[in-house]
Amino acid sequence: MSAPLAAVVLCAGKGTRMKSEKAKVLHPILGKPLCAYPLKRALELGASPLVPVVGHQAPEVEKAIRTQFPAATLRFALQKEQRGTADAVRSAEGALKDFSGRVLILYGDVPLLRRETLEALVAAHEAGKGPLSLVATQLEDPTGYGRVIREGGKVTRIVEHKDCTPEQRAVRECNAGIYLVESSFLWRALAEIRPQNAQGEYYLTDLVEMAARQGPVASIDSDATETAGVNDRVELAARARVMQQRINERHMRAGVTLQDPATTFIDEDVTVGEDTELGPLVSLAAGTVVGRNVTIGQGSVLTASTVADGTAIKPYSVFEEAQVGERCVIGPFARLRPGTELAEEVHLGNFVETKKATLGKGSKANHLAYLGDAKIGSKVNVGAGTITCNYDGVNKHLTELGDGVFIGSDTQLVAPVSVGDGAYVAAGTTVTKNVPPGSLAVSRSPQVNKEGWVARKKAKQG
Amino acid sequence: MSAPLAAVVLCAGKGTRMKSEKAKVLHPILGKPLCAYPLKRALELGASPLVPVVGHQAPEVEKAIRTQFPAATLRFALQKEQRGTADAVRSAEGALKDFSGRVLILYGDVPLLRRETLEALVAAHEAGKGPLSLVATQLEDPTGYGRVIREGGKVTRIVEHKDCTPEQRAVRECNAGIYLVESSFLWRALAEIRPQNAQGEYYLTDLVEMAARQGPVASIDSDATETAGVNDRVELAARARVMQQRINERHMRAGVTLQDPATTFIDEDVTVGEDTELGPLVSLAAGTVVGRNVTIGQGSVLTASTVADGTAIKPYSVFEEAQVGERCVIGPFARLRPGTELAEEVHLGNFVETKKATLGKGSKANHLAYLGDAKIGSKVNVGAGTITCNYDGVNKHLTELGDGVFIGSDTQLVAPVSVGDGAYVAAGTTVTKNVPPGSLAVSRSPQVNKEGWVARKKAKQG
Amino acid sequence: MSAPLAAVVLCAGKGTRMKSEKAKVLHPILGKPLCAYPLKRALELGASPLVPVVGHQAPEVEKAIRTQFPAATLRFALQKEQRGTADAVRSAEGALKDFSGRVLILYGDVPLLRRETLEALVAAHEAGKGPLSLVATQLEDPTGYGRVIREGGKVTRIVEHKDCTPEQRAVRECNAGIYLVESSFLWRALAEIRPQNAQGEYYLTDLVEMAARQGPVASIDSDATETAGVNDRVELAARARVMQQRINERHMRAGVTLQDPATTFIDEDVTVGEDTELGPLVSLAAGTVVGRNVTIGQGSVLTASTVADGTAIKPYSVFEEAQVGERCVIGPFARLRPGTELAEEVHLGNFVETKKATLGKGSKANHLAYLGDAKIGSKVNVGAGTITCNYDGVNKHLTELGDGVFIGSDTQLVAPVSVGDGAYVAAGTTVTKNVPPGSLAVSRSPQVNKEGWVARKKAKQG
Repeated sequence: MSAPLAAVVLCAGKGTRMKSEKAKVLHPILGKPLCAYPLKRALELGASPLVPVVGHQAPEVEKAIRTQFPAATLRFALQKEQRGTADAVRSAEGALKDFSGRVLILYGDVPLLRRETLEALVAAHEAGKGPLSLVATQLEDPTGYGRVIREGGKVTRIVEHKDCTPEQRAVRECNAGIYLVESSFLWRALAEIRPQNAQGEYYLTDLVEMAARQGPVASIDSDATETAGVNDRVELAARARVMQQRINERHMRAGVTLQDPATTFIDEDVTVGEDTELGPLVSLAAGTVVGRNVTIGQGSVLTASTVADGTAIKPYSVFEEAQVGERCVIGPFARLRPGTELAEEVHLGNFVETKKATLGKGSKANHLAYLGDAKIGSKVNVGAGTITCNYDGVNKHLTELGDGVFIGSDTQLVAPVSVGDGAYVAAGTTVTKNVPPGSLAVSRSPQVNKEGWVARKKAKQG
Repeated sequence: MSAPLAAVVLCAGKGTRMKSEKAKVLHPILGKPLCAYPLKRALELGASPLVPVVGHQAPEVEKAIRTQFPAATLRFALQKEQRGTADAVRSAEGALKDFSGRVLILYGDVPLLRRETLEALVAAHEAGKGPLSLVATQLEDPTGYGRVIREGGKVTRIVEHKDCTPEQRAVRECNAGIYLVESSFLWRALAEIRPQNAQGEYYLTDLVEMAARQGPVASIDSDATETAGVNDRVELAARARVMQQRINERHMRAGVTLQDPATTFIDEDVTVGEDTELGPLVSLAAGTVVGRNVTIGQGSVLTASTVADGTAIKPYSVFEEAQVGERCVIGPFARLRPGTELAEEVHLGNFVETKKATLGKGSKANHLAYLGDAKIGSKVNVGAGTITCNYDGVNKHLTELGDGVFIGSDTQLVAPVSVGDGAYVAAGTTVTKNVPPGSLAVSRSPQVNKEGWVARKKAKQG
Repeated sequence: MSAPLAAVVLCAGKGTRMKSEKAKVLHPILGKPLCAYPLKRALELGASPLVPVVGHQAPEVEKAIRTQFPAATLRFALQKEQRGTADAVRSAEGALKDFSGRVLILYGDVPLLRRETLEALVAAHEAGKGPLSLVATQLEDPTGYGRVIREGGKVTRIVEHKDCTPEQRAVRECNAGIYLVESSFLWRALAEIRPQNAQGEYYLTDLVEMAARQGPVASIDSDATETAGVNDRVELAARARVMQQRINERHMRAGVTLQDPATTFIDEDVTVGEDTELGPLVSLAAGTVVGRNVTIGQGSVLTASTVADGTAIKPYSVFEEAQVGERCVIGPFARLRPGTELAEEVHLGNFVETKKATLGKGSKANHLAYLGDAKIGSKVNVGAGTITCNYDGVNKHLTELGDGVFIGSDTQLVAPVSVGDGAYVAAGTTVTKNVPPGSLAVSRSPQVNKEGWVARKKAKQG
């Protein structure tokens, strides 16, 4: 069994270059705040507690993190002033004073770090048995980065770019700033770091030299892509693109066809079944579960929705918290709002909106309709232009349609109201009282044809 | 005149890495199964018969191919077991036993091969006069590929990567696996190939050495892009992208403006006229013909539809098997379903659906309407919210509107029903019987204003 | 103070490879004709007059330019025949005969030239004090381009690729064709240029050698991207992409989140506030002003519209010349047409169209409605399916709804008509006469339930 693992994730920065009223780590990437990603990676690695170090907009950052992670794993630490990365980590000491084991140090603005990389770091640390291990990355152009300095192959320290000798400048192995550190070493060493630099800041990189004096510093190589941070919104978009590519490739390799991966937007925790096919500009947001053999047409947007096997979704359908059964046919231009629950083989067509509406097997509403607060049986046919008048200006009321009901076009169902099994409602009816099963409901003035009216009108106007 | 040409296209594989219940060659790329592309290229080259060698899901593959190609050019061959490429080609011998000439050997999962490349292969073959010619490709990193081995400049054989000597490994000229072979040589040679390898498979590459003993082996160079196969859905998407780029560039060079070629999706056989302009995310699917000076707004999807010159299609219009005349104005959010036929200068606006509907010159339905099973004259004005009640729960019926008819808003036309030339229908009318020409049809209860009602209601509720 | 500056912009070419009935410089890029960009850059630099040299489709080109630029700054020059670039510039002599100062020479088909580059050209020219300065560009592969020939480091002339000696061919510094020239030198020198070439054309490049004899020729380096022209629609699309990237990066660096910059289309003169977030495929066309903290959902298209702070626009909303107040909630699938003016906190939902419609604070129309020629108060609730019948077949009429009005579903408001403050309209009502404040308006036939009707009907059919 591994040693206990905690994670300190630095989330205190403002992120001035974001040009935002919102703290940097709260900026969303694929539907979640930036800092949710490193925290989630730490959680996947088994880290507990997770210690977000908050500072700028501390209450908002804390709140956002609490919505994403179980309370039991979280212990927040506050960095009161921004005095450098070492100071930030040291802020977490109180939160971890009863913890003994390894501390993983991550950044709230580095969203692309992969779990596999952290696993490699743990493995290297265990093999090396030193007090500290780090993630390095080889850069073509290391200008500006701290170099990993080795003597006889062993890591001895990190030297900042500006402090490098000419030989050190030639080093391409750079420090990614991600560490795994024994707690027994960490707090003691942090206390010894001094702000010996122009900025008067406490630098975490000083830990490396201190650790190297006590034992081997293990290092693993990582791709520069995954350790890249976010400093402005151009970088935010660039990181989002890479994250999306990874997710999309994972789905494709698992048997999902993406007609145009470059314009397919799938959040991290979405599930998609084999042989499902997604058109261009399909967005599947957090919490969405799509079955097998589903087709989702161009431009559809699904959020927190479930779609069962064999369903066909035509272009520009928008689902939010909807449950869709097997072999349904939806869209184009259908909008399913929260509380929509469709059984098998339901058809919803163009310009149809549903909200808190359940439809039974085989029911259809193919054209221009609003079905809100409705309980609809099976094999019901809802005509074009049908509207559930669910709101009386004060309250919302329920419409109930029994099995096999036929609702003629342009019907208004003034809720609360019910239509019994097998009943018919004639086109244009305003249904204000319940319709018994097997009945025909109609409210219609007789049609009058005024012959010659057009000629008379024109004569008058002329 | 050229020698007779047949094509054998290998379509028998399963494609395990596709992670699919569907055979690999059936996976669609730009609207057609993968294998349709090499078959089409062979057909364009004049090959007849086309011999698809089927195996995995043979009936489904055969059926899909039959829907794409004329029966007279097809002869299917069955490879019962997958025992290597040589065995696959040999399966075609029966289908070609009465054929004497050249046999082109292609792969069902190589969709990007260009006609020009095959024409170059034929030309090289004719110049070389040997029994076999092949397509080669220069690779920066040839790891894993069979090398084209030459002696004194002449191709002598193909050596698989794993069998290469160090010098052979340095060769960057690789075998693309595409051959043109004299039938007089082919079947005899295939019969001599032995499965002398670990997998016990019959390799087509052995043909090359046998051919080289009999005469010169001509080779042509091709771009690696066009001979790349499809092994998983990541590769499927990558091939689709290249194919789309080629098609899009062809249209742009021919005088079509694509505002954003990266998000323009045009199937191979679509026609677009000069000075037509396509917005981002426009999709033109198979069978679509677009005239000159047409504008198609962002996100529109046209399938098997015809659009005449000068028509303007606004964003998010969806056409399926629709015929649209000159100078029409359609959308945004218009949905034209099969059987829609619009004369010149028809206007269909937002949230309007048509199906089996013909509209005469200058007619308009600009807002929220469903026109199904309708025959509509010229200069008709269909008001907002108009619905043809074409379905009585059992059958569909026709609505006929004469020339110059004015349909008031929110009218229901309960089919079968007709409105004569020049007639008016008042807003909110349920039209259940025919309206004579020049008449006004109305079915309306008189409006009653209950003064003070709101105050009384509130008093009661309070 | 700087010397007077004029700009000659060559806009006379046909652009055969565009395959178009429209002159090349009229082809739109990001919503404006190609030639508008160099003209605008010259204007930003303070050039006056701007002299577009027109030729092919001169009236159309002139008209298009006049819609983009103030008349006072424009003087058009006509090149009657296309006899080379020197001839084209010389055509401008008449328009500038009273001008003394510097003449900037630009091309109507080079849209990516940056203002900063032209500023650098002016600075170099002022430092150099010669009669002519030019923009050069370093090319990896200079094949086909005129080389900048230097002696002792000083520019002496331009040599066309085909006239280069082997040593000259090795030069990578190429002429971008953009010059800043003293008028005192320019017209005299142009008169001396002779068509000593196979094409019989007058080449502007000859100016350089003539200038070098009189004084130093200053040159500045530019990126090849910005001096690239447009010769066909593939290049048009490529230039549009670069232009869009620049604009998008500018917005991102200024605090706007673009979820997918690759599919975000923002015209050059659009304003977007900080902390606004744009989804994929959002298009913001010319004249659009978006405030802070606005969210614009996937696929929305805004043209010449204003959106105030804190408004949320859901996917696939289409705005044209609409004014939207603070904290509104719009869409999805809402269409706001010209003349739409929304106060604060207005909600417009799916399948709702507005045109010449004002809505007061907090009013809502959430489903399937057409509001045209309407003046709507505050806190009004417009039910689903409501339609303003604004058109009687001849004229358009106004609908007025007072504050706090409640319009039941599927109501037709037959304009001209008004509903007084606080009045109710029952579902399905056809409102043909004014409704007094506080009243309930209803026009409804009583609902009749014909019990057993379905069974009787089936018996009859059976």
